[in-house]
Amino acid sequence: MLSVEEIGKKAKEAEPELVRLMSGKKEEALLKVAEALIEGTQTILEANEKDVEAAKARGMKEGLVDRLMLNEKRIAGMAEGLRQIAGLEDPIGEVLSMKPRPNGLLIGQKRVPLGVVGIIYEARPNVTADAFGLCFKTGNAVILKGGSDAANSNGAIVKIIRETLAKLQITEDAVQLIEDNKRETVQQFMKLDQYVDVLIPRGGAGLIRTVVQTSTIPVIETGTGNCHIYVDETADLEMAVNIIFNAKTQRIGVCNACESLVVHEKVKDALLPAMKKRLDEKQVELRGDKAAKEVLPDIKDAQEDDWGREYLDYILSIKTVSSIEEAIEHINRYNTGHSEAIITNDYTHAQKFLNEIDAAAVYVNASTRFTDGFEFGFGAEIGISTQKLHARGPMGLLALTTTKYIIYGNGQIRK
Amino acid sequence: MLSVEEIGKKAKEAEPELVRLMSGKKEEALLKVAEALIEGTQTILEANEKDVEAAKARGMKEGLVDRLMLNEKRIAGMAEGLRQIAGLEDPIGEVLSMKPRPNGLLIGQKRVPLGVVGIIYEARPNVTADAFGLCFKTGNAVILKGGSDAANSNGAIVKIIRETLAKLQITEDAVQLIEDNKRETVQQFMKLDQYVDVLIPRGGAGLIRTVVQTSTIPVIETGTGNCHIYVDETADLEMAVNIIFNAKTQRIGVCNACESLVVHEKVKDALLPAMKKRLDEKQVELRGDKAAKEVLPDIKDAQEDDWGREYLDYILSIKTVSSIEEAIEHINRYNTGHSEAIITNDYTHAQKFLNEIDAAAVYVNASTRFTDGFEFGFGAEIGISTQKLHARGPMGLLALTTTKYIIYGNGQIRK
Repeated sequence: MLSVEEIGKKAKEAEPELVRLMSGKKEEALLKVAEALIEGTQTILEANEKDVEAAKARGMKEGLVDRLMLNEKRIAGMAEGLRQIAGLEDPIGEVLSMKPRPNGLLIGQKRVPLGVVGIIYEARPNVTADAFGLCFKTGNAVILKGGSDAANSNGAIVKIIRETLAKLQITEDAVQLIEDNKRETVQQFMKLDQYVDVLIPRGGAGLIRTVVQTSTIPVIETGTGNCHIYVDETADLEMAVNIIFNAKTQRIGVCNACESLVVHEKVKDALLPAMKKRLDEKQVELRGDKAAKEVLPDIKDAQEDDWGREYLDYILSIKTVSSIEEAIEHINRYNTGHSEAIITNDYTHAQKFLNEIDAAAVYVNASTRFTDGFEFGFGAEIGISTQKLHARGPMGLLALTTTKYIIYGNGQIRK
Repeated sequence: MLSVEEIGKKAKEAEPELVRLMSGKKEEALLKVAEALIEGTQTILEANEKDVEAAKARGMKEGLVDRLMLNEKRIAGMAEGLRQIAGLEDPIGEVLSMKPRPNGLLIGQKRVPLGVVGIIYEARPNVTADAFGLCFKTGNAVILKGGSDAANSNGAIVKIIRETLAKLQITEDAVQLIEDNKRETVQQFMKLDQYVDVLIPRGGAGLIRTVVQTSTIPVIETGTGNCHIYVDETADLEMAVNIIFNAKTQRIGVCNACESLVVHEKVKDALLPAMKKRLDEKQVELRGDKAAKEVLPDIKDAQEDDWGREYLDYILSIKTVSSIEEAIEHINRYNTGHSEAIITNDYTHAQKFLNEIDAAAVYVNASTRFTDGFEFGFGAEIGISTQKLHARGPMGLLALTTTKYIIYGNGQIRK
């Protein structure tokens, strides 16, 4: 087994070849890997079965076992994901805003790969193929550290990818898997800034926090979403109910789901009963502040810690406010910088909300569930960044690239 | 004295007001601060004298005392810097690429401040005014931690800035100085990710390394420059000598100065004696490999550790290669990702060098000394990023901004 240090070194060594790969060759390789995964279905399923059995024996929760488990359809889905990535435009090599300076230097910014990307994720083997595809398309070498519960599945998938690359005379080290699951190994990986240019944790809040606190490699934080919908006094209340129902219940365990309703006191009497009726269809538990409970006396009391919670469950907190200023202050205090929406028909309030809410995505009159690389038209998604550096919001292929200045001169020296 | 925690909180609270400040108001404030610094010259000089005397008494090196010392001209320079920043275009608020999606959602990216910027720097009081100016122009609240040797000077400058802002009814907390110089305080500051959005260390390699290893706040690394010039076999040798002389000697202690010459073996006999003659004007010490010493037998031997050194001194190492491939491999192995140049008249080699060198700025036939925010036409410079995330190369005002998605809908929900 290679040490983490050796893996980092190999990735760095692979990078110059990957930078030079033409788009056409990368596209061909992604299609071949998709094919090879389908052909290798039996092998992958056998490896996955070992993981699933071991996980069940250890008493893993059903929801997590479901994320770990593969079947023919899911493997076909992985292959289809790679085909879609193959079809996207390759961002590498484009030169942006090349302009001459007064001294004749011609300066432009060329889009290039980040270099070596590290991805730490939980026991979801589909991330393995997906992360490879996105990194490979953008000319990056990727080092994967998947959850140990998926070790066999990830091993089988990475083996197939590497064999396919080798057949095409492309460096296998475009993708490497850290197979050593010791805690110290992962710690070591997070300190490998000599070789790794960026580290992306994909998973729950705990994993992300650990990576942010430990890593000396720059981290792109993909994060939790405590998303609010604010229903303003001029809102179309039917629209508001539709949007809240969609944002709360269309999918529960996702970061762009709505976790908290903020409602103007002037519309609470009209909105809350209608909303409750709709949310009752899905047995959504409501937790309201005092003013909300005047309208819906039977719901639970919201506690202070409800305002900051990402439930990822059929629960919605309700905060009543007396002005848009109070709504904005409340949201900016408790949100996680993900997605926030206002439902309003007031022009000034819409603009104010867009201007003053501090989040990756701010909506007027739409569901927060749209914060997603595919919905935004990027054709792929690495994750949704809730930090402000490098990338914010849904990240497409561009988030896996950087630029370098290229400068054409003819003998210029600095005076 | 406020705790670091309280300072962070105050900065965060100031931010909503700063986001809303109109360009015109920011411009006015910057001009008023410039004026106030000039008016306060005596106060600043008295504070600075205390710092300088204390530093001398502690035996601070002359070069460092020089960087610490202020005089009327230097304060005028600080004010002029603020006036220049005032005159730049305000990047905040621009909406980029707003486009409709098939479902009618109109999605655009709005340029916004990063939020709260932390800057850790050494005993250079001019950075205090400059960092404030750049952050204020881009709507950010800034928390400054200057070198303790400049504590009085920084205190005087920040006091003047804060008083000027207060007179204009702008929140003073746009700029705060951490006055507690205890080691634990700085450590605490670097972990303040709850309030601070980005931390920028400005100073030597040691400071930067400490910040990268300690901070849980995202860091923009501004860094060391081990810059190379490669003289290819088809180079115009007179141009090569001019560029090497300029890049090595025009200013010694800067990160974009040339530290190492890489020369093709076919031109070493013609280049090296002419180059030595020119560099002798400035008593530059040469350290060559074996092949270089065949031409210049009297120069020192280059040791393995010379290749990775940023001398910041009148020293140049010389590495001989037999191909452009070898030159690129050598440079990519030892460079620090700053600025690299090729001198050539070969079209294919020029393109190859631009494509394959991994650095923030890659030059053909020009001096590496041009890597600079002003030379690149940004009108300001926060530093030169040698990392790949968020900003790479000279950073202008844009590096202190991020974007958020703004989305106009009319009731859209996700299917």
